[in-house]
Amino acid sequence: MSERADDEAAAPAGNGGLVVAVRLRLDLAYDGTEFSGWARQPDRRTVQGVVEEAIALVLRLDDPQVTVAGRTDAGVHATGQVAHVDLLTPVDPESLARRLNGVLPDDVVVRGASLAPPGFDARFAALGRRYHYRLTDSAPNPLRRHDTVVWPKALDDVAMDEAARGLVGEHDFAAYARPRDGATTVRTLRRLAVVRDAGLVTVHAHADAFCHSQVRFMVGALLAVGAGRRTLEWPAQVLSAGVRDNAVTLAPAHGLTLVGVDYPPDEELASRVRTTRQRRTPPR
Amino acid sequence: MSERADDEAAAPAGNGGLVVAVRLRLDLAYDGTEFSGWARQPDRRTVQGVVEEAIALVLRLDDPQVTVAGRTDAGVHATGQVAHVDLLTPVDPESLARRLNGVLPDDVVVRGASLAPPGFDARFAALGRRYHYRLTDSAPNPLRRHDTVVWPKALDDVAMDEAARGLVGEHDFAAYARPRDGATTVRTLRRLAVVRDAGLVTVHAHADAFCHSQVRFMVGALLAVGAGRRTLEWPAQVLSAGVRDNAVTLAPAHGLTLVGVDYPPDEELASRVRTTRQRRTPPR
Repeated sequence: MSERADDEAAAPAGNGGLVVAVRLRLDLAYDGTEFSGWARQPDRRTVQGVVEEAIALVLRLDDPQVTVAGRTDAGVHATGQVAHVDLLTPVDPESLARRLNGVLPDDVVVRGASLAPPGFDARFAALGRRYHYRLTDSAPNPLRRHDTVVWPKALDDVAMDEAARGLVGEHDFAAYARPRDGATTVRTLRRLAVVRDAGLVTVHAHADAFCHSQVRFMVGALLAVGAGRRTLEWPAQVLSAGVRDNAVTLAPAHGLTLVGVDYPPDEELASRVRTTRQRRTPPR
Repeated sequence: MSERADDEAAAPAGNGGLVVAVRLRLDLAYDGTEFSGWARQPDRRTVQGVVEEAIALVLRLDDPQVTVAGRTDAGVHATGQVAHVDLLTPVDPESLARRLNGVLPDDVVVRGASLAPPGFDARFAALGRRYHYRLTDSAPNPLRRHDTVVWPKALDDVAMDEAARGLVGEHDFAAYARPRDGATTVRTLRRLAVVRDAGLVTVHAHADAFCHSQVRFMVGALLAVGAGRRTLEWPAQVLSAGVRDNAVTLAPAHGLTLVGVDYPPDEELASRVRTTRQRRTPPR
């Protein structure tokens, strides 16, 4: 489930010493409500676990390894998740997608399967991840209660949007991250914008990658602004302090959806993978 | 829960012999998944039952009677349902809405409450009802599986839209209705249109009122066209035959949502109520 999977691949060498018969790109969507997040855990229902079990069942494999672009937390959803899986024997991707959807539970869907271009790696080739955080401060729609947080008072979305701009750019987001041993918390936040459409307030977040829980902490800070409890400058001040601030609350998981992952053109995939591994892999 | 409720109102006469202290308009939304439809039934969880219980609890009333514009079937949703309730003592509508939402389960929401204008009747003053039926024939979104029907093959939405036009107008919709004793099945279908947005195919239906299960039967006929099993003319031919045709399947309930109810300007409410009662009430 990490870069080690490649190192251990059984197939003969070729593309950078790590070739397999076929790498498939899987485009996935899921309702995170009933999952303990993406990453496989013993005795927990996880998206990775359910998808790997479906692949094992359909292709009669022992222990397929699925690598994902965005390792979503418990309760977080995805409409545009991307993953890859390496197979030792070729399959027809469309037929595989149909067969997987035939055995997957109804809260996970394979929206597409395709042969990955050379050099593709769902995680390390990704240029960016895009998330939406959905809030409603009036007339909530019960049909969207699973992916929309109901806020009991009017939110000042204009103030939130203004405050959000103070976080955009390349920064150390340690103040907005759950710490992970040795991993850098420097990220490039390309967009953080707050958009209102009637009673629905959506936070759009786009970065090269996000630290653990980063979007939910940033939304927590913006909510303090939107509720009038903090100034427009406060989220940027927290960022500059560089350490987790307990005044920043973690916004609920169920408002968050991974809506897309960006990749470079095919000819730049391999160099992107090299760059990402160098920059972000913690030292061993 | 029909026009009889008015006849039995305890308040002194005034507006057509039937006045109460205050009539409130309630705008409601619900996820129909866990409900046996709108109409109260013994030992079933119904939207009417849940809403009336919430009103009884919050206002300490014995047996509040809620009248609704669209009596949705089991599994059918609403984002724009309209109802009214008569109270013998005035209340602040906004405060009532907040208190109701505080005790309602999370699959029903009061989106608004207001003093009804004179002559208003959620059911009999309505000029029209608007429904959406959601289908997806590619890349389903698991977050919308509760209100979107997954169709396993590509739907010809252009053919469906063309066929839909053959049903628009004032007709006897007996061929598309579950029979109800003595009630007319003549309705004016103002719009029946099929709109595609990527993988989502939405049927828009707008009429003065709909017969029991009418939208789902019409969608069933359009699906036969969209799947290539029937000609563009077939839905209109079924209509002309004037009797239920077993070749028309009933589309699943969970794709259907009542999205809105139209009312005339306030000064025309009372005359609208009179007209509707004359036209649609079955003889006693």
